[in-house]
Amino acid sequence: MANFELLQPLLHDSGGKIVLLVMDGLGGLPLTPDGLTELEAAHTPNMDRLAKEGSSGLSIPVARGIAPGSGPAHLALFGYDPIQYQIGRGVLEATGIGITVEEGDVAIRGNFCTVDADGKITDRRAGRIPTEEGAKRVELLKQISIPGIEITVEAVQDYRFAVLLRGQGLNGAIADTDPQMTGVPTLPARALKAEAEYTAGLVNQWLAEAAKVLKGHEPANMVTLRGFAMEPGLPKYKDVYKLKAACVAVYPMYKGVARLVGMDIIPTDSHDHPGDEFRRVGDVWKDYDFVFTHIKYTDSRGEDGNFDAKVKVIEEVDAALPELLKLNPDVLIITGDHSTPAKLKSHSWHPVPTLLWAPQTHMPDRAQRFGERDCMGGALGQFPASELMQLALAHANRLAKFGA
Amino acid sequence: MANFELLQPLLHDSGGKIVLLVMDGLGGLPLTPDGLTELEAAHTPNMDRLAKEGSSGLSIPVARGIAPGSGPAHLALFGYDPIQYQIGRGVLEATGIGITVEEGDVAIRGNFCTVDADGKITDRRAGRIPTEEGAKRVELLKQISIPGIEITVEAVQDYRFAVLLRGQGLNGAIADTDPQMTGVPTLPARALKAEAEYTAGLVNQWLAEAAKVLKGHEPANMVTLRGFAMEPGLPKYKDVYKLKAACVAVYPMYKGVARLVGMDIIPTDSHDHPGDEFRRVGDVWKDYDFVFTHIKYTDSRGEDGNFDAKVKVIEEVDAALPELLKLNPDVLIITGDHSTPAKLKSHSWHPVPTLLWAPQTHMPDRAQRFGERDCMGGALGQFPASELMQLALAHANRLAKFGA
Repeated sequence: MANFELLQPLLHDSGGKIVLLVMDGLGGLPLTPDGLTELEAAHTPNMDRLAKEGSSGLSIPVARGIAPGSGPAHLALFGYDPIQYQIGRGVLEATGIGITVEEGDVAIRGNFCTVDADGKITDRRAGRIPTEEGAKRVELLKQISIPGIEITVEAVQDYRFAVLLRGQGLNGAIADTDPQMTGVPTLPARALKAEAEYTAGLVNQWLAEAAKVLKGHEPANMVTLRGFAMEPGLPKYKDVYKLKAACVAVYPMYKGVARLVGMDIIPTDSHDHPGDEFRRVGDVWKDYDFVFTHIKYTDSRGEDGNFDAKVKVIEEVDAALPELLKLNPDVLIITGDHSTPAKLKSHSWHPVPTLLWAPQTHMPDRAQRFGERDCMGGALGQFPASELMQLALAHANRLAKFGA
Repeated sequence: MANFELLQPLLHDSGGKIVLLVMDGLGGLPLTPDGLTELEAAHTPNMDRLAKEGSSGLSIPVARGIAPGSGPAHLALFGYDPIQYQIGRGVLEATGIGITVEEGDVAIRGNFCTVDADGKITDRRAGRIPTEEGAKRVELLKQISIPGIEITVEAVQDYRFAVLLRGQGLNGAIADTDPQMTGVPTLPARALKAEAEYTAGLVNQWLAEAAKVLKGHEPANMVTLRGFAMEPGLPKYKDVYKLKAACVAVYPMYKGVARLVGMDIIPTDSHDHPGDEFRRVGDVWKDYDFVFTHIKYTDSRGEDGNFDAKVKVIEEVDAALPELLKLNPDVLIITGDHSTPAKLKSHSWHPVPTLLWAPQTHMPDRAQRFGERDCMGGALGQFPASELMQLALAHANRLAKFGA
């Protein structure tokens, strides 16, 4: 990870500006033994030029052989050791929809579900009700109050919502109430350690009230709660890197992680294309030292197993790239948080193609284009993703010499 | 090293099967400035095809610049930090010949030597007596008993034997009794810390008895003891990786390390060729998730300084490889534990050529054949040998995603 302590006395504000462009799940695999990966197959004249001019390499998100979730993978890119700093799902979900999670709060992911007259689950996702239907029922949940705590409930998407508990003495060590099967009742909240007994009791009061207010609102007539978690207390960008940082992302979870490291979240529209996102980067460019911008659909199409569609997303990003280039960033990094090969339809552990373009300082290598095999022999080598931020700071001329 | 704690919740039994083929001392050096290494010079059509299809790289056994012994080098390949986990030679020798070393035992390597009438060493290896002669004298040593402890003595090879002490309060912190020169008497056992005084006293009683029973049995009329060591308490494969693992090796020491990490030792014959070993892998293949198979003679010929003979051993392994390939392993790793360049006639620190072939998941690279220089630009990069097992597990589909 970035060595925050080492960096601290070396940091200075040169005014150098950094763009970190993350294509989620960028890394891929060929479908046939002599085929190309998604990135290699994509027509990417802009990225190819940058790769030819700058430095390429492969980043290892968490550790060799470990396929990471997007949370730890992004923390690594942001310079945090993803094993040391773990963020609970509840916190990711809540922060991602704009709920501010403070020290001592407990954040929880909620799902609407369907239960029968005996309280047994018949559908764990309440027939995947659309977001509007979920939002209506969230209004009912908002009416619930439990003495001694402040409760925030917000719709996320479809049948999903987030809950935040604020008050004295709360603890997030509580097991999921989703039994992960149908035909049985939802589980009560159970404390995983003694300090969480009080919180579990409050949650069970809330669950009892939720059952009452949702009665008759089939198919979403009950809830399950998962991913109980507390604010992780991550060091912030302005402190560890002396960077004023912003995030331009469409999906809630990525905004969530960015917020936890102290980035300002720039409003986006859920229908934003890469070009729209990059224009938003431009809109706020003068106000920030560092902008993280995130493209979700490389990962989504990889998860779908749709090689060609993932190629198209990459090509769309490449076509929109001039929007970023015209900002003349001192450092432009293009990478992924992990690999999501269409061949595997899932996140994988394969090292992630990374391109660092910093015209004043980058070391050219023999890469002729941006792709896995060109990255293998590149100037950056294979390196831990969590060391990328140190490189970014150096290339932005933001780090003084260490020692005399 | 493999992060056992991180892996634990991620491990699942997919049924994916792994072969780890280790050619001892595989890495080499060219004899002339523009020459080839042993592996590059060898005609290896099978390995070349696998390298072309799969991923190549170079592994660093212990740390850059460190030439390891076979013990630490194998521990690293097995995923253990060879600096954190150190196995004494006595334990390696004893376990390698099938003596079970338990917690609290002290294991020791013994050499027969020749002493003159004054007790001064005239030959530290007793004229390199053959194994049968050593075995006869071991029978004499077996007659010795010392009150309070159980003593096992077994012949190893030539002038070498192993001793195991079992009893209460034993400690292995004892210096070698071999003075490493002739013309002086053997040394008494000396405790290196107070806790080992009692054990040193017992060993000296035993040494006095050994001198008596061996008197007149020239050239092997005395012994030296080396490598005093206790069972190292290594975590076991079935626990840390959830793998049912087996070892097919000819030389005792490699069986010894494999046994210490919990592998079952498959019986072999000391005259086994690579093809024989690989057939033994096939014989037990259905019963195991992971088979480690070890080829000794690449190292031996390297140590001899015999470049051509090392090339021949590699070619023999390549020719036998179809025996392994017909098992259709999900993951086949071909590597060495360290380099033993014939040019240097010794173990060296040079990174070791490594080939990972896992047809469902490997990342092809630009390697056209299996050899040091092709490995340099490969998909695996340069990596710590102790991280290889994480890659093996990932490619065998035995690791779930880390975090959400």
